Amino acid sequence: MKRKDLLGLRGVSREEIVEILDTAARFRSVSKRRVKKVPTLRGRTVVTAFFENSTRTKTSFDLAAKRLSADTISFSSSTSATKKGETLMDTARNLDAMVPDAIIMRHPATGAPHMLAQKFPWAVINAGDGINEHPSQALLDMLTMRDHLGSLEGKTVAIVGDVYHSRVARSNIYGLSTMGARVLVAGPGTMCPPAMSELGVEVRHRIDEVLPEADVIMMLRIQRERLSRGMMSSVREYATFYGLDMEKLRRARPEVLVMHPGPINRGVEMTPDVADGERSVILEQVTNGVAVRMALLYLLLGGAPSGSDGGDDAAA
Amino acid sequence: MKRKDLLGLRGVSREEIVEILDTAARFRSVSKRRVKKVPTLRGRTVVTAFFENSTRTKTSFDLAAKRLSADTISFSSSTSATKKGETLMDTARNLDAMVPDAIIMRHPATGAPHMLAQKFPWAVINAGDGINEHPSQALLDMLTMRDHLGSLEGKTVAIVGDVYHSRVARSNIYGLSTMGARVLVAGPGTMCPPAMSELGVEVRHRIDEVLPEADVIMMLRIQRERLSRGMMSSVREYATFYGLDMEKLRRARPEVLVMHPGPINRGVEMTPDVADGERSVILEQVTNGVAVRMALLYLLLGGAPSGSDGGDDAAA
Amino acid sequence: MKRKDLLGLRGVSREEIVEILDTAARFRSVSKRRVKKVPTLRGRTVVTAFFENSTRTKTSFDLAAKRLSADTISFSSSTSATKKGETLMDTARNLDAMVPDAIIMRHPATGAPHMLAQKFPWAVINAGDGINEHPSQALLDMLTMRDHLGSLEGKTVAIVGDVYHSRVARSNIYGLSTMGARVLVAGPGTMCPPAMSELGVEVRHRIDEVLPEADVIMMLRIQRERLSRGMMSSVREYATFYGLDMEKLRRARPEVLVMHPGPINRGVEMTPDVADGERSVILEQVTNGVAVRMALLYLLLGGAPSGSDGGDDAAA
Repeated sequence: MKRKDLLGLRGVSREEIVEILDTAARFRSVSKRRVKKVPTLRGRTVVTAFFENSTRTKTSFDLAAKRLSADTISFSSSTSATKKGETLMDTARNLDAMVPDAIIMRHPATGAPHMLAQKFPWAVINAGDGINEHPSQALLDMLTMRDHLGSLEGKTVAIVGDVYHSRVARSNIYGLSTMGARVLVAGPGTMCPPAMSELGVEVRHRIDEVLPEADVIMMLRIQRERLSRGMMSSVREYATFYGLDMEKLRRARPEVLVMHPGPINRGVEMTPDVADGERSVILEQVTNGVAVRMALLYLLLGGAPSGSDGGDDAAA
Repeated sequence: MKRKDLLGLRGVSREEIVEILDTAARFRSVSKRRVKKVPTLRGRTVVTAFFENSTRTKTSFDLAAKRLSADTISFSSSTSATKKGETLMDTARNLDAMVPDAIIMRHPATGAPHMLAQKFPWAVINAGDGINEHPSQALLDMLTMRDHLGSLEGKTVAIVGDVYHSRVARSNIYGLSTMGARVLVAGPGTMCPPAMSELGVEVRHRIDEVLPEADVIMMLRIQRERLSRGMMSSVREYATFYGLDMEKLRRARPEVLVMHPGPINRGVEMTPDVADGERSVILEQVTNGVAVRMALLYLLLGGAPSGSDGGDDAAA
Repeated sequence: MKRKDLLGLRGVSREEIVEILDTAARFRSVSKRRVKKVPTLRGRTVVTAFFENSTRTKTSFDLAAKRLSADTISFSSSTSATKKGETLMDTARNLDAMVPDAIIMRHPATGAPHMLAQKFPWAVINAGDGINEHPSQALLDMLTMRDHLGSLEGKTVAIVGDVYHSRVARSNIYGLSTMGARVLVAGPGTMCPPAMSELGVEVRHRIDEVLPEADVIMMLRIQRERLSRGMMSSVREYATFYGLDMEKLRRARPEVLVMHPGPINRGVEMTPDVADGERSVILEQVTNGVAVRMALLYLLLGGAPSGSDGGDDAAA
């Protein structure tokens, strides 16, 4: 892979996506060993800079970096100088001066990682920027789909919920379209506006309009805050119309895959029997997350030949 | 040791306790070396999942894991998805998908670690669940006692304070009873109810009723919140009746050991001259904590043969 | 270097400062390699104990320790037992029982690290105590100056701002004086009281009184909290009189160096065109920070011969 950064799946070629997924598939074996570690990135510095809370994504990247033997540094917003009024660019210049190899970044502002990627020599991996993209999540979703469907070409993926505000959805839409899949989206009008068809997806409103055709149903996490701002009258109403329960699931194909980026609001986006049922591949998504992130770090940073640190003691 | 988990000392045999203490005693030498590290658990993943605040216990486990060369991941409740309404079981399923080797868990709900231990293949070490157990603390207490007393058989240990709400006390009661020690407890009636005798201890109320017989006096940390809820009229009254000062200490045997799980409320559970006095073994408890936790990780995970990671670069 | 600790630059000899700066200059090459890591401190335990918020300094020390292969443990006040009323000495005794090699400490109380250094066998590096000292910051400042000026002997350094309350300024004043530099300070009367001349500096008040003579202008970070307590009528007034802009900079020597310990309040201590301009060496300061901290850890702890951990498995 020739890229310096992974900022989104928009504009990433089919060949690149295949390379990432194939590399991730090979890295899965590392986490199955007793010694879950390879020396590939020994002595490289990976910084996680999360300006929004996240346990899963951050832990997944942290673990991926550690299993590649990189040193990891956590730079979290709650303790950071950003509180003292420092600009993002100042923070980045300071990180730069510490000579990192990669920055994994989550930021509430769309485009924040792009800005850093343009200015600095290190690899930037976008772990979520505003409502724009979250490419590693879409890659792990696609790896999970590919495991079950063999190929994504010609397959139908239904994304249900607040598609408009979801960076997970957006990255999946770009990636799946590139891989030749057909994407249907369904949700309330405020969450699935007709203009979304410009992204190449088919916009529906009722969940029943997408269920029967889907090879994959991807349920998005609902932000309760958003519901209270008048987008839907209540969580209960949302669950009734857009939540997936066993009854609705029976209207889908028997071999359909049920996915969710987590964490699930059980009883809202789906009922527990669906989340834990036999069509759910939600936990495979998490496992694939570590492998995809190992692949991204490996492909962006390149492996180091081992034993190249030049002896015992540089300063002696 | 044949166990997968250490959830408590209830039901743990004398042979197992001896094996843990003997292993811990051997591991103490590692922390005395210049290079305080052995490759035993290289490439294994140890997750600390603390759903209640704790610096000492978490740091102690973290250090134990690092001195065994394991990779450590911290999953703390304050930044976790549990805030977003995720259930413990969902959190655990997600941890599971990252293929950890051991989870060190503290949780306000009694039985939470037991629930995970039953469902998942990784080792669970209970670092405190509700008012139930905190076995690694009791093991380090017993190692400290054994160092000084030679054997626990037939020795008398007095536990003073809020025994009823103390998981430290409970684990010590189970462990000490198994090792053949006699346990006396003393405290206000709300903190040492007569029904505690069902655990095999002798319930007293005045500290003077336990001092003269004790080989060990274990003072428990008082929760100031609890005092204010009407259990005692004030911290000052508690200190007067149940706090250990030099005058009360003179009524104990001259060779008595004074212990405290920390952090001490100086002037409440004991006066500074007692805490720092020659009968206090409180800091030995902390040192033994790292060794006991190394022993637990070693015994539960087993040592890995070194050099078994199969070459440089798994994905290349 | 024969010291156990680095508590401040007061009393540190010219030879010692030169040794630290020379060692740091050699360590800079490590961070430029692909494998940014040397095994020098493998198996040693470095604890960062920050009782005041800091991202930059803590990250810089953490990275320095990791690039020397030490194990790092973070002990932060927000999650610590100090919240539960534990005294600093109790906290330190507990850290001691975990057998660390070095503690990097920031504390609001002047003299806190000195107290620990006196009582405990491990190395203490003061990362800021009250308004007293912050020696590693001054050392990285001096390394940056030396890179550009060749020698500090006879050079003039102007420190501008709240000098009285600045531990950065105080450490620089001690270190620069020892190295034979001349130090001018300028700021409002409450921040640069005449009595500061007892430290061997020349106290001025208007920034124009120091600009023309300076080889280096060091702008200090202003604490907005302090302005509101009546020391200056407003941030805006401070910026007008003491902030560095291009116009004021033209009154300085053309080859003057502009420094700031960060994070900058842009538009207050200096305008963005000055901060990012060609005279600014602010980011070199950060880069030198990692190297200086590697040098300090190396010199205080000594390098370990590699391969000395005595085999695979201590407890087997």
